Amino acid sequence: MARNVERRAALADAGLRVLAATGARGLTHRAVDAEAGVPVGTASNYFRSRDALLGALGERIMERFAPDEHRLAELGAREPSLELVTDYVRYIVERTTAQPELTRALIELRLEAVRRPGLARVLGDTLRRGYRDDVAFHVAAGLPGGAFEVALLRYAVDGLLLDLLGTSIDAGFDPDEVVSALVSRLLAPAG
Amino acid sequence: MARNVERRAALADAGLRVLAATGARGLTHRAVDAEAGVPVGTASNYFRSRDALLGALGERIMERFAPDEHRLAELGAREPSLELVTDYVRYIVERTTAQPELTRALIELRLEAVRRPGLARVLGDTLRRGYRDDVAFHVAAGLPGGAFEVALLRYAVDGLLLDLLGTSIDAGFDPDEVVSALVSRLLAPAG
Repeated sequence: MARNVERRAALADAGLRVLAATGARGLTHRAVDAEAGVPVGTASNYFRSRDALLGALGERIMERFAPDEHRLAELGAREPSLELVTDYVRYIVERTTAQPELTRALIELRLEAVRRPGLARVLGDTLRRGYRDDVAFHVAAGLPGGAFEVALLRYAVDGLLLDLLGTSIDAGFDPDEVVSALVSRLLAPAG
Repeated sequence: MARNVERRAALADAGLRVLAATGARGLTHRAVDAEAGVPVGTASNYFRSRDALLGALGERIMERFAPDEHRLAELGAREPSLELVTDYVRYIVERTTAQPELTRALIELRLEAVRRPGLARVLGDTLRRGYRDDVAFHVAAGLPGGAFEVALLRYAVDGLLLDLLGTSIDAGFDPDEVVSALVSRLLAPAG
């Protein structure tokens, strides 16, 4: 069982490399088998359709963005405040920009899903769960704001990541300064 | 000359349809010729490389997002205020979501440009010019905030558009309410 989980993750990681190199439309089970160095048919055993394969890549991206437990414990030990939210969001930007090809792949999957209802279903589940978990964490930690503020921040950070990891509008401001302003302004009315 | 401008626009529009159907990687000069119903070689005459072609699509998207002059004059006649900025941004969201395939194409081009320095150059020029024009317009109109606030709004609206036009986090809030909150909160400190 543990072996299957590992194998599945290794196949998904190979799929993410194919996705980065060729885009969503170049991704096939056979290309994943080749990239992972496994017999033809292996990826099909784990992911029964192209949408299931693409959806699994979305889930794997979220897994690979998971925070380090030690860093999270340090942050969790602090008093809730706008500064603490700023540091949480900076840590999100740090993790996502450290794996730029994963962040770009997630945006590409969100766009590709418009043409693929099967992918939209799997990826929609992943994104909805991620948002609900963020809201639950935010509220449980006593941080300022609620579901609405978490959504506003999410939109703003997604747009910032697109600017940092794709062609930029080159506004010329420091990302740390931008994150700090986004958090303090979007959450202040609730603080 | 006018004829050349029209032909160039018609070719770019054909290119945008190919891009929507097949993605950036499926876009070739030959596919554009076929889609536009012109002799093979026509697109190559107007756009000398693949990057030039992709870059021209970015410019054409911005042209097609241009506001209606009548609507703009109505907005321009009002006193500058946060409410007026909200209505400007709602009009941006209205225009971009009315042509969802163009908005998605622009995001895809921004990501694709990471692998194509030639495209990054052309598209970067277009996006930088767009941002500078937005700032100049904002300041000349006496609207609250400056270059920094225009950048914050731009990030937040780009992220909102990704959520509206791709797989959503399904936060369940009304986009009009979201835009109103983004404007009043991001610009209020400057207002």
